[in-house]
Amino acid sequence: MLPGPYLLHLGSATDALSIKTARGVLQWRPEACLGQRRLAGCSVDLGLPGMTFAEAVEHGARTLILGSANAGGVLGDDLVEEAVLALEAGLNVASGLHQRLADRAELVRAATRAGLRLFDLRTPPADLRVGNGVPRAGLRLLTVGTDCSVGKMYASLVLERELREAGLAADFRATGQTGILIAGDGVPIDAVVADFISGAVERISPARIDGGWDIIEGQGSLFHPSYAGVSLGLLHGAQPDAIVLCHEPGRQHMRGLPGRALPDLATCLEANLVAARLTNPGVQAVGVALNTSTLGAVERAEAIRVAERDTGLPCVDPLIHGAAPIIDRLLECFKPSPARLSVDA
Amino acid sequence: MLPGPYLLHLGSATDALSIKTARGVLQWRPEACLGQRRLAGCSVDLGLPGMTFAEAVEHGARTLILGSANAGGVLGDDLVEEAVLALEAGLNVASGLHQRLADRAELVRAATRAGLRLFDLRTPPADLRVGNGVPRAGLRLLTVGTDCSVGKMYASLVLERELREAGLAADFRATGQTGILIAGDGVPIDAVVADFISGAVERISPARIDGGWDIIEGQGSLFHPSYAGVSLGLLHGAQPDAIVLCHEPGRQHMRGLPGRALPDLATCLEANLVAARLTNPGVQAVGVALNTSTLGAVERAEAIRVAERDTGLPCVDPLIHGAAPIIDRLLECFKPSPARLSVDA
Repeated sequence: MLPGPYLLHLGSATDALSIKTARGVLQWRPEACLGQRRLAGCSVDLGLPGMTFAEAVEHGARTLILGSANAGGVLGDDLVEEAVLALEAGLNVASGLHQRLADRAELVRAATRAGLRLFDLRTPPADLRVGNGVPRAGLRLLTVGTDCSVGKMYASLVLERELREAGLAADFRATGQTGILIAGDGVPIDAVVADFISGAVERISPARIDGGWDIIEGQGSLFHPSYAGVSLGLLHGAQPDAIVLCHEPGRQHMRGLPGRALPDLATCLEANLVAARLTNPGVQAVGVALNTSTLGAVERAEAIRVAERDTGLPCVDPLIHGAAPIIDRLLECFKPSPARLSVDA
Repeated sequence: MLPGPYLLHLGSATDALSIKTARGVLQWRPEACLGQRRLAGCSVDLGLPGMTFAEAVEHGARTLILGSANAGGVLGDDLVEEAVLALEAGLNVASGLHQRLADRAELVRAATRAGLRLFDLRTPPADLRVGNGVPRAGLRLLTVGTDCSVGKMYASLVLERELREAGLAADFRATGQTGILIAGDGVPIDAVVADFISGAVERISPARIDGGWDIIEGQGSLFHPSYAGVSLGLLHGAQPDAIVLCHEPGRQHMRGLPGRALPDLATCLEANLVAARLTNPGVQAVGVALNTSTLGAVERAEAIRVAERDTGLPCVDPLIHGAAPIIDRLLECFKPSPARLSVDA
């Protein structure tokens, strides 16, 4: 996939959530991240060494990742100029924006001149099919959320890691550009043609008969008026046996929509279960994953207590506590049994 | 838009629902439809004169409409061959399939040689934005359904016509290729990039302050596992004040999915109302539109009685009875009042 190591471009971001691509790659592939580049006005910082393109090349970097994003995935002229300079300095360029590098003639020219490549990570496969909702073998867990950017990908990756540590087969299935960068595979579900949302998910999580789990990365929220269609198609295509609800306590409003409140946990969980039953009537909720990175210890403990009380489910911040209580609940709910194994095969 | 009159191509269709594009154009723009062309094996018939491409040109036809569709919108080699022959005979070619005419080099060459045009009706605008769910002025009615192809477009067009006959301003807002052919405008909502579903609907039904209604064409069904994401994004983007539920009594299974039952009317209606409240808490259901074209008079009357009993709403087959009881309910629910007018302005 992408030639590493990487230089992470933070643009002129002022909002920590807008650099979630750069932050996610750094968190989950730290060995591949050499440095960061910030434009004037950028007020966020990943703590990596700041580098010019030439310095990054000297240190061995092979690809510039455009690691900031805006609603709508617009590729601005400032970023195009930066990408041309990076190519001229000797770096490939990767982007997860909706607007594609390959659609800008000056970038295609610069890449050709330099003998380097442009990677548009949000380009879906061309041969997708519509979903069919037919049950398929295997076990699937989907992370769902009260909002965008509340930690669905992080929770999914922790669940994958801990299931593997427990000796089970488990595979993270990426549905967003950051997850694809981390996993090296997946489909950017918000970029597929609308008719193919559920079909694309059926494709990235096909039948499996090894008894292992697919951990499917959720997107958006059924309660986000911009993106709920994506979330519903993803839910139907995933046919999850288990769902984990993700949430960031203290968030003031739905991402990008000042004045619009988040749903409460119990309402959000119930809506996801009701919708999920269309393609998997046996779906069960097995836990709540909170992103408590902005909270102190006392507030964190209280947030977890409230979430457990309101949902009746084990609750953790997976980056702080790991996911053991959720894994325990999952394995309790889906104990291998002769009946289950014969259905799955 | 498309130069008329048209020759309607039925391909080798054997399923009446698969030629809904051709049938819809004939129903709503009969004056523009000169003839039909059927390939070997085609067992459906619109009752138009059969014509070769040369005969159609002699009779004055200017555009061939590929009027049959399959799941996934695939443009097969047989249709490409036909389209080349049509161009060589002197006809423009229009298609509502996902796979585009303009992506086939032989068609582009043939069109260029002939000085004619290719129209890909399922191409969304390039500059869509994500939706924001912010309330906007004006009144909107959305048709929703138990399944695909149950009469949402027909019901919408009848409602537009009868509201206008009642002296109100009303505009059909097309969201599918057939509706776009009929209206001459709209966005093919199932073909937009998934992130932009609700934003595309916000765009085709912007704020209006004349007191009139936008009648927005629904797509798919919240209960169809292939397409529910499209239906939900459309519902959120439409912010409907009123919904009309559409259904075809006697349908054996969800479109394209043998063995999967349709939802009952009350369940389907409630799910749509719950989901619609995210962007319009005041949404009200005002009627049920049945497609009873396969029923006899006794069965039809019984189907209408049952639908009225199960939903508590006025029910009609709009193509047989018109939509007067639904219009009456709509105007009763949304009586102009000084308060409402001041909110809208």
